Amino acid sequence: MNERDALRALAADLPHAGDDAAVVDGTVITTDMLHERTDFPPGTTRYTAGWRAVGASLSDVAAMGAKATAAVAVYADAAFDDEKLDRFVEGAVDVCEAVDAEYVGGDLDTHDEFTTASTAIGDASDAGVVTRAGARPGDALCVTGEWGRSAAALRLFERGDGGDDAVERANGLFRFTPRVADGLALADRATAMMDSSDGIARSLHQLAEASEVGFELDPDRLPVHPAVDAVAEGPAERFELAAHFGEDFELVCAVPEEAVEPAREACPAGLTRVGRVVDAADGVTADGDPLPDRGYTHG
Amino acid sequence: MNERDALRALAADLPHAGDDAAVVDGTVITTDMLHERTDFPPGTTRYTAGWRAVGASLSDVAAMGAKATAAVAVYADAAFDDEKLDRFVEGAVDVCEAVDAEYVGGDLDTHDEFTTASTAIGDASDAGVVTRAGARPGDALCVTGEWGRSAAALRLFERGDGGDDAVERANGLFRFTPRVADGLALADRATAMMDSSDGIARSLHQLAEASEVGFELDPDRLPVHPAVDAVAEGPAERFELAAHFGEDFELVCAVPEEAVEPAREACPAGLTRVGRVVDAADGVTADGDPLPDRGYTHG
Repeated sequence: MNERDALRALAADLPHAGDDAAVVDGTVITTDMLHERTDFPPGTTRYTAGWRAVGASLSDVAAMGAKATAAVAVYADAAFDDEKLDRFVEGAVDVCEAVDAEYVGGDLDTHDEFTTASTAIGDASDAGVVTRAGARPGDALCVTGEWGRSAAALRLFERGDGGDDAVERANGLFRFTPRVADGLALADRATAMMDSSDGIARSLHQLAEASEVGFELDPDRLPVHPAVDAVAEGPAERFELAAHFGEDFELVCAVPEEAVEPAREACPAGLTRVGRVVDAADGVTADGDPLPDRGYTHG
Repeated sequence: MNERDALRALAADLPHAGDDAAVVDGTVITTDMLHERTDFPPGTTRYTAGWRAVGASLSDVAAMGAKATAAVAVYADAAFDDEKLDRFVEGAVDVCEAVDAEYVGGDLDTHDEFTTASTAIGDASDAGVVTRAGARPGDALCVTGEWGRSAAALRLFERGDGGDDAVERANGLFRFTPRVADGLALADRATAMMDSSDGIARSLHQLAEASEVGFELDPDRLPVHPAVDAVAEGPAERFELAAHFGEDFELVCAVPEEAVEPAREACPAGLTRVGRVVDAADGVTADGDPLPDRGYTHG
């Protein structure tokens, strides 16, 4: 069983699983594990790792349209280096501050491989939550921010010939701002929402399945992060990095026509219309061609 | 830096860290990582692992005197075996049900070593929380339940000669009931409380430091689990396993004299007076001798 099938099996068993986060009595909760080999390429600082690990969970809270309140993390490594641990905590504290949440500590563990597990909670008692189900044909398909920054960062990390400057830029790109403010602005406007951990293509297939709809993506409208242009060799690779790589932690949502403009004005990260919701029978397409349900499979 | 010093450093940085769980706006949150090599001896079933991993977090919520509401967990393994994952989830669901909380899912990850990270949340908006600070000289020192069951289980797992029956008993001993009901009963009675992850000796030193008091332990009064008698060779080893091994997930608390009897009646797991709180200058003693701050160092 691969990870995706396993997640499906897990969701089938648990009424609350299967969305970006679970909801219990108005509290949203979500957890993620990231580890060195698959998530933190050589060059990733502990500060960036703390930011990114906790940020990934805050992003899931954002995707529910909830107010992020707090996060905790487990820091596991082969040895506890004072400096590294401090930097990790600083990154975790700073990403929480960026979205007006509190980092309240966690646990330490000894592990062969540097491994983190972060959990964020949020408050959805005001506006309720936005799930992946609820998109209706005719709604506009919108996304926040710019896409492809993690893909660009990975290229910079991998190059190895860019020197310290490239590594520093890669770290900067890896430290995304979780879209909590945008999620809150979309909470009473979007009909369905999720974050883009696996890229726009896979996100659309997941939203389509949950909402029982289809999507028409206009690929030219997908806002691509400038860093992608610096690493991509041509338009095909540019689209590949922006659409399929994932880990952008931007929001993907369906918004009724009349709410698009007010939503756009309320989203600090910007909101771009990139297509529309269609009938399930029409499937998920880009420029009229089927958009494959393909993303980078992250460990 | 060892794990303990690192935790101290972490607690110094974060106002909310350093107790069994953090508290944010009346919500208690706590997280733990357990993994195969250090926490799940050969013979531990995935059902037991799910129960124990999530139970450890629920125990931290109990130690704050909060009502456990929900838990999530990350399940990481080298491959996703349908059957193993199902059993893990069943264990997680069942331990939550045992304390009237909800298991609401989690995340999957690919990892060389079977690793879990669990997070539990609880509601402390009614009675407030009981921290490790607050014990006063003259209070009775009390513990819930019986001690040494995890130590006895480990012996049974290690023996290897006991056959399936011994392994089954070991698994049963490993599936403790988190003391949430007891913690709630003690919430408005105890002056300080924690769970006994590192044994009674280390717990007393931690409570002593947080509350700036000392403790007189009467070791003969420590209720020892019957399974310890079956594996210990004599009284010294019996005390060692019950007092120093840890991972009992029982509650240790200070209770004012007049509240001991009503608290005892309200604790489903039983509450036993095992000593008393004294001045900090008197230190932590057992039968008049200094009780070493020594526990099993769990990975």
